[in-house]
Amino acid sequence: MPQLDEIVTEIAQEMACYSDRGEVASYIPELARIDPKHFGIAVIDAEGNAHIGGDGDMAFSIQSISKVFTLTLALGKAGDRLWRRVGREPSGSAFNSIVLLENEKGIPRNPFINAGAIAVTDLILSGHQPREALGEILHFMRFLADDPSIAIDEAVAASEQRTGFRNAALANYMKSFGVLDNPVDYTLGVYFHHCAIAMSCRQLAMAGRFLAWQGLNPSTGHRVVQAERARRINSIMLTCGHYDGSGEFAYRVGLPGKSGVGGGILAVAPGKASIAVWAPGLDANGNSHLGRIALEALTRRMGWSIFGA
Amino acid sequence: MPQLDEIVTEIAQEMACYSDRGEVASYIPELARIDPKHFGIAVIDAEGNAHIGGDGDMAFSIQSISKVFTLTLALGKAGDRLWRRVGREPSGSAFNSIVLLENEKGIPRNPFINAGAIAVTDLILSGHQPREALGEILHFMRFLADDPSIAIDEAVAASEQRTGFRNAALANYMKSFGVLDNPVDYTLGVYFHHCAIAMSCRQLAMAGRFLAWQGLNPSTGHRVVQAERARRINSIMLTCGHYDGSGEFAYRVGLPGKSGVGGGILAVAPGKASIAVWAPGLDANGNSHLGRIALEALTRRMGWSIFGA
Amino acid sequence: MPQLDEIVTEIAQEMACYSDRGEVASYIPELARIDPKHFGIAVIDAEGNAHIGGDGDMAFSIQSISKVFTLTLALGKAGDRLWRRVGREPSGSAFNSIVLLENEKGIPRNPFINAGAIAVTDLILSGHQPREALGEILHFMRFLADDPSIAIDEAVAASEQRTGFRNAALANYMKSFGVLDNPVDYTLGVYFHHCAIAMSCRQLAMAGRFLAWQGLNPSTGHRVVQAERARRINSIMLTCGHYDGSGEFAYRVGLPGKSGVGGGILAVAPGKASIAVWAPGLDANGNSHLGRIALEALTRRMGWSIFGA
Amino acid sequence: MPQLDEIVTEIAQEMACYSDRGEVASYIPELARIDPKHFGIAVIDAEGNAHIGGDGDMAFSIQSISKVFTLTLALGKAGDRLWRRVGREPSGSAFNSIVLLENEKGIPRNPFINAGAIAVTDLILSGHQPREALGEILHFMRFLADDPSIAIDEAVAASEQRTGFRNAALANYMKSFGVLDNPVDYTLGVYFHHCAIAMSCRQLAMAGRFLAWQGLNPSTGHRVVQAERARRINSIMLTCGHYDGSGEFAYRVGLPGKSGVGGGILAVAPGKASIAVWAPGLDANGNSHLGRIALEALTRRMGWSIFGA
Repeated sequence: MPQLDEIVTEIAQEMACYSDRGEVASYIPELARIDPKHFGIAVIDAEGNAHIGGDGDMAFSIQSISKVFTLTLALGKAGDRLWRRVGREPSGSAFNSIVLLENEKGIPRNPFINAGAIAVTDLILSGHQPREALGEILHFMRFLADDPSIAIDEAVAASEQRTGFRNAALANYMKSFGVLDNPVDYTLGVYFHHCAIAMSCRQLAMAGRFLAWQGLNPSTGHRVVQAERARRINSIMLTCGHYDGSGEFAYRVGLPGKSGVGGGILAVAPGKASIAVWAPGLDANGNSHLGRIALEALTRRMGWSIFGA
Repeated sequence: MPQLDEIVTEIAQEMACYSDRGEVASYIPELARIDPKHFGIAVIDAEGNAHIGGDGDMAFSIQSISKVFTLTLALGKAGDRLWRRVGREPSGSAFNSIVLLENEKGIPRNPFINAGAIAVTDLILSGHQPREALGEILHFMRFLADDPSIAIDEAVAASEQRTGFRNAALANYMKSFGVLDNPVDYTLGVYFHHCAIAMSCRQLAMAGRFLAWQGLNPSTGHRVVQAERARRINSIMLTCGHYDGSGEFAYRVGLPGKSGVGGGILAVAPGKASIAVWAPGLDANGNSHLGRIALEALTRRMGWSIFGA
Repeated sequence: MPQLDEIVTEIAQEMACYSDRGEVASYIPELARIDPKHFGIAVIDAEGNAHIGGDGDMAFSIQSISKVFTLTLALGKAGDRLWRRVGREPSGSAFNSIVLLENEKGIPRNPFINAGAIAVTDLILSGHQPREALGEILHFMRFLADDPSIAIDEAVAASEQRTGFRNAALANYMKSFGVLDNPVDYTLGVYFHHCAIAMSCRQLAMAGRFLAWQGLNPSTGHRVVQAERARRINSIMLTCGHYDGSGEFAYRVGLPGKSGVGGGILAVAPGKASIAVWAPGLDANGNSHLGRIALEALTRRMGWSIFGA
Repeated sequence: MPQLDEIVTEIAQEMACYSDRGEVASYIPELARIDPKHFGIAVIDAEGNAHIGGDGDMAFSIQSISKVFTLTLALGKAGDRLWRRVGREPSGSAFNSIVLLENEKGIPRNPFINAGAIAVTDLILSGHQPREALGEILHFMRFLADDPSIAIDEAVAASEQRTGFRNAALANYMKSFGVLDNPVDYTLGVYFHHCAIAMSCRQLAMAGRFLAWQGLNPSTGHRVVQAERARRINSIMLTCGHYDGSGEFAYRVGLPGKSGVGGGILAVAPGKASIAVWAPGLDANGNSHLGRIALEALTRRMGWSIFGA
């Protein structure tokens, strides 16, 4: 599909020219050092071809994008029991807000805000040592991306563990309501580490294929989840995947997507493509500024919006 | 399409059997009298055929579903200037909440919560007498549904005007921030009246066609809005169309939709169908209880979810 | 008591020299025109002597100070039934906040925030025409101050009625919860008018005597309220009399007091003095900036803090 | 003063007869075991005589009453610099609420809610090891009460440390805003331990004397704090000493006071008495139910309200 190749190349070139690139996340010291000039993009199409642009093969910290995969894992383990611990409504507030927890007995609004993802991690951890749980998550990522080289950036994990007081507050708060089963330190340890997984756009887009193709890995035909579950995860990405900018992302891009403060976004065009972009500068809601603009350009040119051709 | 006919008939039969039908809205006296046994459904397919089930030709109070059409009208008048008055993020709170207004300088979070729809109504009103603005809205509904018999239920409008103190609070609150241009009574008058429009499922599904077919009326080929605008309205319906149950509706039904406290829901399957259902009993979030269940059954059987076949 | 005379004169002179005088309330057009250079003070001592300084005989808009007197009147009418409509806890938020009403079923936190005072006014109004209720309030003020010349500034009342959308929001909001009995417009009309009463510091200090002397008018020996009720009103002034600056006023001045956005403050030194000050410039919480500083100077020099000599 | 002796004895007898005694705090396991039948009272009068009733010599966990003394200590160390870390306004919310911290950049509203007391403890800790800071606090309590036997109940401290997730959330949250200087575990350790100090009513009333007598220990004439500081601490006790029941306590009792979830209350009648009561059952706001009733009876009979004789 030469057209897609051209579009991906064009977008990478256009993104290189932007001067307003947003602000690189500063609250995690290791991330603050990343050069805001980077831009990467990878699109896996229905034929399984990868279209790569810019720094699409350079690894970055996936951060909250990992929440899509931990949610998938936890649903596999706990099924709908998971929804006793976490809701699935947009929060109407910032990614690290603690306010709603107080009104809702410590139940986070959805699995993609920090509190919700910590509760999901706690479920994966149950019955395991932190090291085992982390191994399982990493193994799952490598399997999905078909790439055994994917690893955790220990420096990033350590950086978060030293400075992640806000997340420690969220975890302790949920613990006070009995929403977490494991020791707070264990759950946070696993959480900080899976957020510190480093992947390239190519690897991320590969890992996201099952969401675009009804729960299947289209190359191998392996089923990752049932088709209904894939749809449902997509729906949560659409309504909650960009924190308090989720409405804006749906409005402009029109695809389910999940952002991370490392500047990555995974987006899914059902039946058409699995897409990852990376640009480290963030907007006011903590989502990649150029990443969103690039995805908007891509879906407009390809007619991929789920809200009408 | 006989299959769709059968499915619509089946769903109407299934819905007749439910004993748990939710609670009919009680805060508007005129609505409280409606028999919770009603159930109606209408599906307009890509060929323009109407598939009707149950009470699909019985008129009911469309209430907040009117907000989809006033948003469309106001965007036609004001374009993107509209977004200075109202946001497009899910609210994370109830349909009539006033709390977020205080933190956000009187700017409502989206056009589908009450405060946002009042701000949109105020825009339509500007430069007009209330009677004219209302005439314009009614004319638009009749044009979209291709049915000049559509009318306002004056008893419902009067009932709301007598008891709509919460909406009067929202309007005065926004007025105090300068978000409304017109006298509060004028704006509220138009708002209460367009919420009191009575339509059947058939009429509503007809009126919603432009959202399913890229802004066009597929029967006549008339363009109502640009394709991009139709997609964007759909995206707001998906993220904000069911108040604090929007995430749940996306998760279960997988279509853009807008509910009203009269028990109606308009839903859009882009490129495939415009759908309206009606069942007066509501769930805890103020959305039609059986309406949502019926739509979930329909989209599952037809494979219409926008989140993957 | 020559010492008190000297202190009052000194304070008036000191206050004339301040350059940082706060900001005159701008949201009521009529008040915005007042010259911030004014400063008045009046102290009625235990012997009934009045000590007047600066503009202590110039009338100003008492605004929220009227709430002390409407609370007293309403308690006389309804007794402890009043506390079903309004609480008596500090609000932890601004004078015109609507947020807490949502969590507390429309019951205002205390009678001195706007919402609470509107609920109190509604109680006084019940069974009367607005004109009668207003006549009763005015008569009560004239009786307490022993001055039949006290009147309402109709221009101020009209100014508030035209622009008081925030108060209309509060009233409609409470009405939606059934906290108000009367038509919203009636209750607001009485409220705006009693806030628009014009009085001098001398008149206010006279009117406040019953709070300093156990419910008695010390000149005539007439009992206004029981001693316990006077103490209790004082306690509410201490905890709630300065909106979200009540803690600060207690900390610095150490007396029960009630402020108004006209720049007045009524303060009570039980057994020792009834005090009124006036300086139109306000601090960030909407309390008279120099008024508080003057009272702090007075209580420190006289050793009048209720928290220890 | 035989009259006071009789009144204290009467009150202790009356309190023994109450069947509605509130609920013993259950969230700290060690406290949940206390028999709700206990009632103790101690009043130290201006002559230094102690009037003891009921279980007035039985030790209980002073819990948040310790916050009065840590505030005093921290003010001695940091002076008005302390107020950069903590406000002095009533919170309008529960003792362990986290909500306001989010709006106010991690600055607690006052030193008597949990978050504020943790921030104060952090100030005392600075430059010290936890053991030293705790030693200093304990030494101060023994000095004030003139009783070297006062000690920490290690079982209570350990119980809180194991289950104090809510406080850990508050501390981590403030740490994320830079409001705490020391490691969260250190600060919480000292906090849990000073809350676990065990004292009798007699010891508490002795320790509180400096607040009633202008900062002096009336027996020895030693100055603990300046008179102004004693008044100011009293003012904070009045406005903030009973969490979201502070207005109620001021209204009914009319004295500065500080409660603890162990069921104790320290109250101060300036120039007249230092008072401690203890009854383990709590009201909905977490304040001793009978303790408040006993204090109301005492101040009414003695005419000790600060709001008028």
